[in-house]
Amino acid sequence: MTDRSYTPPKVWTWDKENGGAFASTNRPVAGATHDKELPVGKHPFQLYSLATPNGQKVTILFEELLDAGHDAEYDAWLIKIGDGDQFGSGFTKVNPNSKIPALMDHTGDTPVRVFESGSILMHLADRFGAFLPSDGPERTEVINWLMWQMGSAPYLGGGFGHFYHYAPENLEYPIDRFAMETKRQLDVLERELADKRFVAGDDYTIADIAIWPWYGNLVLGRIYGDAATFLSVEADYPRVMDWAERIDARPAVTRGRMVNQMSGPPEGQLRERHAAEDFQTKTQDKIGGDAD
Amino acid sequence: MTDRSYTPPKVWTWDKENGGAFASTNRPVAGATHDKELPVGKHPFQLYSLATPNGQKVTILFEELLDAGHDAEYDAWLIKIGDGDQFGSGFTKVNPNSKIPALMDHTGDTPVRVFESGSILMHLADRFGAFLPSDGPERTEVINWLMWQMGSAPYLGGGFGHFYHYAPENLEYPIDRFAMETKRQLDVLERELADKRFVAGDDYTIADIAIWPWYGNLVLGRIYGDAATFLSVEADYPRVMDWAERIDARPAVTRGRMVNQMSGPPEGQLRERHAAEDFQTKTQDKIGGDAD
Repeated sequence: MTDRSYTPPKVWTWDKENGGAFASTNRPVAGATHDKELPVGKHPFQLYSLATPNGQKVTILFEELLDAGHDAEYDAWLIKIGDGDQFGSGFTKVNPNSKIPALMDHTGDTPVRVFESGSILMHLADRFGAFLPSDGPERTEVINWLMWQMGSAPYLGGGFGHFYHYAPENLEYPIDRFAMETKRQLDVLERELADKRFVAGDDYTIADIAIWPWYGNLVLGRIYGDAATFLSVEADYPRVMDWAERIDARPAVTRGRMVNQMSGPPEGQLRERHAAEDFQTKTQDKIGGDAD
Repeated sequence: MTDRSYTPPKVWTWDKENGGAFASTNRPVAGATHDKELPVGKHPFQLYSLATPNGQKVTILFEELLDAGHDAEYDAWLIKIGDGDQFGSGFTKVNPNSKIPALMDHTGDTPVRVFESGSILMHLADRFGAFLPSDGPERTEVINWLMWQMGSAPYLGGGFGHFYHYAPENLEYPIDRFAMETKRQLDVLERELADKRFVAGDDYTIADIAIWPWYGNLVLGRIYGDAATFLSVEADYPRVMDWAERIDARPAVTRGRMVNQMSGPPEGQLRERHAAEDFQTKTQDKIGGDAD
């Protein structure tokens, strides 16, 4: 474990691609690579996204807001990160970090750009006064867990998921490092759910909506191949499993996972979403057997 | 680069330590390891921390609030993470994630726990109405960048810093992966600072206070050995350097970096902070030559 056979250069240079399955999206520079304006639909909210865990956070919140009776109609446009859509000039104006999800809010006097999934969740929750208390200790506790998710999931996604599932070579030390941290994070949730129905208390909030697409999908076996087995989720995290299943059963979650989805069964893929009826059409596709 | 000589087991087990310089702090389980109550001082804010970049965010904000005339007096207690203080029962009640910084706010009717540095920054900024606009597009833009920091810095700290500086073996692929991402993040900031004085606009906000301890200290050459040279910061990120130096010159930043500090010159280490006069004492130490 003290092998120093590789010696880094004094100055790093970009002489090869890196990232395995995501090599085409990884660059050491920021900014646009090509001119391309973004499409704009009829609703006040324009979402540019893809159904990764970070993308699912926002579409689930939009669908939950609609189910709760809020006027949160939105257009969801597909950003194919494998094709480099996030490096188009229109996209980088909305999010200079070139990551999905990115949102334009046209509900006020001036259009507002909102980027980073955690910022979009807070912006929408405060805009509608839903899934986030407006003040007091309850608000702080929800934000504690929202921030916990933002700072923790990079170890799950960019760490464990990458080295266990996507990297071009299996490296024991990084796999061990990030498996250990992911298990610790799951155990944090397991202990927290001992006496609360949801992560930040007895109410379902944007803390759950932020955490579920990562840790819920993980324990439900939907990401990173055999990761759920590798991390012993059924034996070690029964409360997290129960919480994940309860949230998974929500209709808004089912719909939110479909929006901008490019993988899984065709009937679960609503590439773009512009109206509530779009889900109905997909269901009819399924019944009719048209999609496969 | 497609070496599959290591095959992970079907189920991961905790059979060895991992983490190099931080091995003693890394575990696959959460929760307290021992009973230990936390000390409580006379001020309404009780901070339990260490002057890592995440710790510096909060002490810098407290000192900035005080310089701006707010009633933000606080007690800062040292949490020695190398000794496992973050696994004491008192600490895990304030932060079940066992990471510094953690804050108790006694200013209201009921004490409020605040954890995750990003949550503490928002909580204090909203509490005092400072360094974060109360609403509108300007508030959203600050939160965009605060969330950007929360989701990006794990690639700098837990990724690049770890594999380049702390890991027990040098591994080419992870070093390349996280060096590339860190350079991309620095370039995001470089482009953003082209036409703005601070990250989220012309005002100094909690976005800068969150980003500076990581990316400012990095370009100023203070973390991860020769990392500033390795990442070509002087040649590639002149605007980030200028921004970092401007913020570094603020008196509150100098004081904030001293609080709960355990490394560097002795006169820069104020292990605990309970009053404004504590900094004066350190300065006298320095003049008197007592500390070395």
